[in-house]
Amino acid sequence: MKKEFKVTPYEATGEIDYSKLIKEFGVSELNDKLLERIKKHTKELHLFLRRKVFFAHRDMNWLLDEYEKGNKFFLYTGRASSKGSKVHLGHLIPWIMCKWLQDKFQAEMWFQFPDEEKFLYKPDVTLEDTEKATYEDMLDIIALGFNPDKTHFLIDTKHANLMYKEACKVAKKITFSTVKASFGFNDSNNIGSIFYTSMQAVPAFLPSVLKGRNIPCLIPLGVDQDPHFRISRDVMPKLGYYKPAILHNVFLPPLQGIGGKMAASAEETAIFTTDSPKQVEEKIKKHAFSGGQATIELQRKKGGNPDIDVSYQYLRMFFEPDDKKLKKIYQDYKSGKMLTSELKEILIEKINKFLAEHQKRRELAKKQVDKFIFKG
Amino acid sequence: MKKEFKVTPYEATGEIDYSKLIKEFGVSELNDKLLERIKKHTKELHLFLRRKVFFAHRDMNWLLDEYEKGNKFFLYTGRASSKGSKVHLGHLIPWIMCKWLQDKFQAEMWFQFPDEEKFLYKPDVTLEDTEKATYEDMLDIIALGFNPDKTHFLIDTKHANLMYKEACKVAKKITFSTVKASFGFNDSNNIGSIFYTSMQAVPAFLPSVLKGRNIPCLIPLGVDQDPHFRISRDVMPKLGYYKPAILHNVFLPPLQGIGGKMAASAEETAIFTTDSPKQVEEKIKKHAFSGGQATIELQRKKGGNPDIDVSYQYLRMFFEPDDKKLKKIYQDYKSGKMLTSELKEILIEKINKFLAEHQKRRELAKKQVDKFIFKG
Repeated sequence: MKKEFKVTPYEATGEIDYSKLIKEFGVSELNDKLLERIKKHTKELHLFLRRKVFFAHRDMNWLLDEYEKGNKFFLYTGRASSKGSKVHLGHLIPWIMCKWLQDKFQAEMWFQFPDEEKFLYKPDVTLEDTEKATYEDMLDIIALGFNPDKTHFLIDTKHANLMYKEACKVAKKITFSTVKASFGFNDSNNIGSIFYTSMQAVPAFLPSVLKGRNIPCLIPLGVDQDPHFRISRDVMPKLGYYKPAILHNVFLPPLQGIGGKMAASAEETAIFTTDSPKQVEEKIKKHAFSGGQATIELQRKKGGNPDIDVSYQYLRMFFEPDDKKLKKIYQDYKSGKMLTSELKEILIEKINKFLAEHQKRRELAKKQVDKFIFKG
Repeated sequence: MKKEFKVTPYEATGEIDYSKLIKEFGVSELNDKLLERIKKHTKELHLFLRRKVFFAHRDMNWLLDEYEKGNKFFLYTGRASSKGSKVHLGHLIPWIMCKWLQDKFQAEMWFQFPDEEKFLYKPDVTLEDTEKATYEDMLDIIALGFNPDKTHFLIDTKHANLMYKEACKVAKKITFSTVKASFGFNDSNNIGSIFYTSMQAVPAFLPSVLKGRNIPCLIPLGVDQDPHFRISRDVMPKLGYYKPAILHNVFLPPLQGIGGKMAASAEETAIFTTDSPKQVEEKIKKHAFSGGQATIELQRKKGGNPDIDVSYQYLRMFFEPDDKKLKKIYQDYKSGKMLTSELKEILIEKINKFLAEHQKRRELAKKQVDKFIFKG
């Protein structure tokens, strides 16, 4: 039997049963029919879609109906920076999805940096901490190749002239009972943390406010953020806006195994975008949970289990876009033809190639930050 | 026995016992010794001080200690505009006090317009309503003669770039339990109303943030607003700022009698700054509660009671600055030499003279609004 698991914006623990989560959260499965419908517009499907790294959604059919009527959508996602927090591979998944969707649908992208969120939730985090981390995080996002003419960064404390007023409109429709139930809050929560979900709702309709017409919104995000949008999806029609559509991704597992999610707080078992080739190699070799056998002989004889092997899963979920190559790796590893060390070598090479390019672009991004910050 | 009374930022009912309020709120009486100390600096005392319209305070002695050391204070008060709300004479009391203190102490004045407050607390009030009313209210404030070079208007939704970040710092230190206890909130309050008190705290230390040094603050206000500042006075030292000093005024009674406070919602028994001479005359004649006798004969014989007579109280609290003249009116009315109709005539003339001048200046204020809005 699977262990208990818990997924909220503030906690993701245990071995997550995503089918159960679909029922619990009341979201819809991202099924093949819907993927085909997306493919009609995009010609190809990103591996995150083909391989169900994005596994669930809300209102994608409605979004495509609108798109097909000529009512284009914009994209919204976000990043809550914390004290010294660094971006890891797991963070990149929704962002890479956004970049791909931006290209395929020529969509405007609104990126929120709620620099007050972690400050409000964590006693030892200051606003100076989150400000510093926000800048670093922007570099990672820019490095992914977003179109600067169509991408707008919103920083909660710096764009509050635009956002606070709209957040008040949202807040007026949400009682403390609701946030208690959604986030497990109680009377000892601080009043900033209680208000915060209203700020997270704002970018989902701010472009509609600015343009003076109702524009559909699509939010690709980690499924743990869904509770915020369960609330804001209730509120937005009351303010005269569409409910945002949502695409939910599963978590990239931490190196040590398939449960939970990669976490920046567990330095050893997360791969950061700023890691050196040496660090990546060491982390994979030392920590990546293996589905292989204890000895080379046993591996050759019995074969490994790619389904629980973290290195294989990273290839499947992120680093091997070629379906045929991936299939061959799967078969070779399962049959014992491929050893764990060989599988890890493939992954190390792939990650380091990705990071070398990413780090180069991340460096160049330092000159581009200003272009991305929304001038309201 | 006096009836039950209740004073919160959201309610002021019953016959208010101000001595009891001093104990309940834990504030200090504004006694003669302190008034003498203020007079040392101001040479004269405004009638609001001489006649104890300001009756209580927090930390005024500390504020004067700092002032005497050369550490000047700034002034802060505010006005929460509502749907179609108009300024009445009662509102003017803390503002006139601020203007007088600005002149006497050459103090900077920060005036907050929390345009989200009534929106958050009242179901039928929109942000368009409060925006419109805020503009009208600014005219009344400017008309009082504030120095445009030393007076700064802060509008919560328009200055949120400055204020929201600081409000988050306050909010992090306030739990829902605290606002529950202070304002009588419960789980069905909306999360904007729960957060709001953090915004009201901000102007009490924003000048210190902007100037990069700790500056003492004095807040003249109606005593009903004290609960907000009981909370923020707890929080501000935790953020490294002085607790603001406070001067509390009693409420100007409504025309119909000495209990409660003049309320904009009771059109007939409030005198608005935009009332015509005719309206003032009619309201006073028809509604001003009289301490006089039922007939002229009885009045001549027994005399009236100025202590419960609203017209006399308005002269005492607001419109007759000359102590000798006031004393004579008191004696003449009490002895029966002065009739209720004569007393009312004196008041009507005084109010209309004040309003004629105010309305002229209010008209001129339309060209000055922009000068007063803080350019941050």
